[in-house]
Amino acid sequence: MQNIKLTMAYDGTDFSGWQIQPGQPTVQGAISDVLENLTQQRLQIQGAGRTDAGVHAAGQVANFKTEAELSADEFQRAFNALLPESIRIVAAEHVPPDFHARWNAVAKTYRYRIFRGRVVSPFLWRYVQHDPFPLDFDVMAEAARKFEGQHDFTSFAASTGSEDEDRDRTMTRVIYRSEMTRVACEDLPGSAEEWVYTVRGKSFLRYMVRKIVGTLVDVGRGKLQPENIAELFEMRDRSKSGPTMPPQGLCLAEVEYPDTPGHDGSQ
Amino acid sequence: MQNIKLTMAYDGTDFSGWQIQPGQPTVQGAISDVLENLTQQRLQIQGAGRTDAGVHAAGQVANFKTEAELSADEFQRAFNALLPESIRIVAAEHVPPDFHARWNAVAKTYRYRIFRGRVVSPFLWRYVQHDPFPLDFDVMAEAARKFEGQHDFTSFAASTGSEDEDRDRTMTRVIYRSEMTRVACEDLPGSAEEWVYTVRGKSFLRYMVRKIVGTLVDVGRGKLQPENIAELFEMRDRSKSGPTMPPQGLCLAEVEYPDTPGHDGSQ
Repeated sequence: MQNIKLTMAYDGTDFSGWQIQPGQPTVQGAISDVLENLTQQRLQIQGAGRTDAGVHAAGQVANFKTEAELSADEFQRAFNALLPESIRIVAAEHVPPDFHARWNAVAKTYRYRIFRGRVVSPFLWRYVQHDPFPLDFDVMAEAARKFEGQHDFTSFAASTGSEDEDRDRTMTRVIYRSEMTRVACEDLPGSAEEWVYTVRGKSFLRYMVRKIVGTLVDVGRGKLQPENIAELFEMRDRSKSGPTMPPQGLCLAEVEYPDTPGHDGSQ
Repeated sequence: MQNIKLTMAYDGTDFSGWQIQPGQPTVQGAISDVLENLTQQRLQIQGAGRTDAGVHAAGQVANFKTEAELSADEFQRAFNALLPESIRIVAAEHVPPDFHARWNAVAKTYRYRIFRGRVVSPFLWRYVQHDPFPLDFDVMAEAARKFEGQHDFTSFAASTGSEDEDRDRTMTRVIYRSEMTRVACEDLPGSAEEWVYTVRGKSFLRYMVRKIVGTLVDVGRGKLQPENIAELFEMRDRSKSGPTMPPQGLCLAEVEYPDTPGHDGSQ
C-alpha cells in the first residue's frame, strides 16, 4: 500500500467546487473518476480543504492510498493525460503512510484579486473580481493588518459550516499574515492595477476570506474604518461585516506541511 | 455620420475566428450583433485583418460608420455591457471619415507563446502552445532574425488566401522585427519559461506567423539550420518549411496607424 500526495492547480470556473457532489462537476469528482480508471478501484481522495464553486487553486493538496504499482511520476503523467486542461497535477510524490492532507496541514495561503481598471482583459476575467469604483487602498491595507493574530471570526464566517469540516466548533482562528498589495497589470495596453489580498493562516472558516475581503472593500469605500475591525470581532455578528465577495477572485495559493521547504515548524 | 475606431481584445478559444461566417460564432459577428442592437441597423464593421479560429487578440482594430448619436465613450460602455466577457472593447474613439482600419494600418505585431515546462498551468492553456521537448533556444533566436527584411514568403503561407484579403497577388512581405525572447513563467510553483516569438511587419499572408514559428521549432529541433531560411525563401515551396503551428499560441498584439503614439511615420 502506498500513500500518494498530489499538488494540484485548477481553474474553478466550471466546477461546483472541490468536494464531490452527485450530479455536479467537481474537482474531487474529476480526479476520483480518473483514479478509478487507473486503478479499477474507487479510492478516497482526501483534500487539504474544500474550495467553493468558482474558486481556483494554484496549490491545493490531496492524498490517496493505493495498492496500484504505478510510481508517483507515472500517476502524475497519467492524471495529466486524462484530466481536463482546467485541472493539472503540478506534483505527485510518495509520502509516509501517516500523511493526511487535511490533518497534517500547518498553514494555508489564499489570494483574492481585485481588478482596478475600466476594462477587464478577456484573458483575466475568470480570475479577478472587477471593481472600477473609487476605493482607498491605504485604509484597506491598514485594515487588512487588523486580521492578523488569533481572533473569533464569527463575524466573518458563513452562517454554518467550515472549510475544514469543523473538527471542533470553535470560531477562533489564527492568521499569520493578512495584507493588501498592488500589482501593475500589463495584460492590455493602458495602465491598470490589481489589488491583491493575501492571507495565510492555520485554517479558515467557510466564506471567511471572501467575507474579510468584502469587509476590506467596505473600508475602502468609507463605510467602515480600520478601527471597526476590532469591534466586529467583539460583535460576533456576521450581518455587521462586509458582504461575501464573489468566488472568481479567490485562489487557494498554497498548503504547507511541516516538511514544506522553508517551513520552519513554527509559524 | 461618424466614424468610430474600436480597439479590441478577445480570447479566440471559443470563436471560429474574426470574420463573420453564417452559423458560426465569430468575433466580428458578435460585435455586429451588438451594434445592430444599439443602432437598429446592420452596419459593416471593418477589421484591420482577419484572425483565424482559436487565435487571440490584445489589440485588434476595427471601424464602422454610423449616424447614431452615441459618443465613442458610450459605444465602448454599451459594447462592454452587452458583449461576452471573452471580447472587450479596450478603446473607442472618433476618427476622421477617411479612416479605414485595414487600408490605413502601417504595421501589425503578432506574438506566439510556447510554454516550456512539464505542466501547463490551468490558467494558461488557452493561450500557449505546450512544447516540453528539447529545443535549442539560441539557434531559434538566430533563425528568427533571418525573417527580417523584405522577402517572398511563398514558403511560409497557406496554400491560398491572405490575412489581408489580398489587395494584390504578391507574396512579398516586409518584416520590421522578428525575434524570440524567453520569459520566466511564475504562474505555478516550480520553474518554467515561455518562449515568445514576436513579429512586426506591414502585413502578413495567411498562416504566415504560424508557419514561421513551425519552421523555428524545426530549427530548434535540429531538423533545419538557421542558414536554411534563405534557401526556403528561394524555394517558394511551402512543403519545405515547418508545420503550421496550432492557433492557440498566437495573439494579434497590436495594429499601428500613422498617428499611433510613438509611431514615427517610417518603419
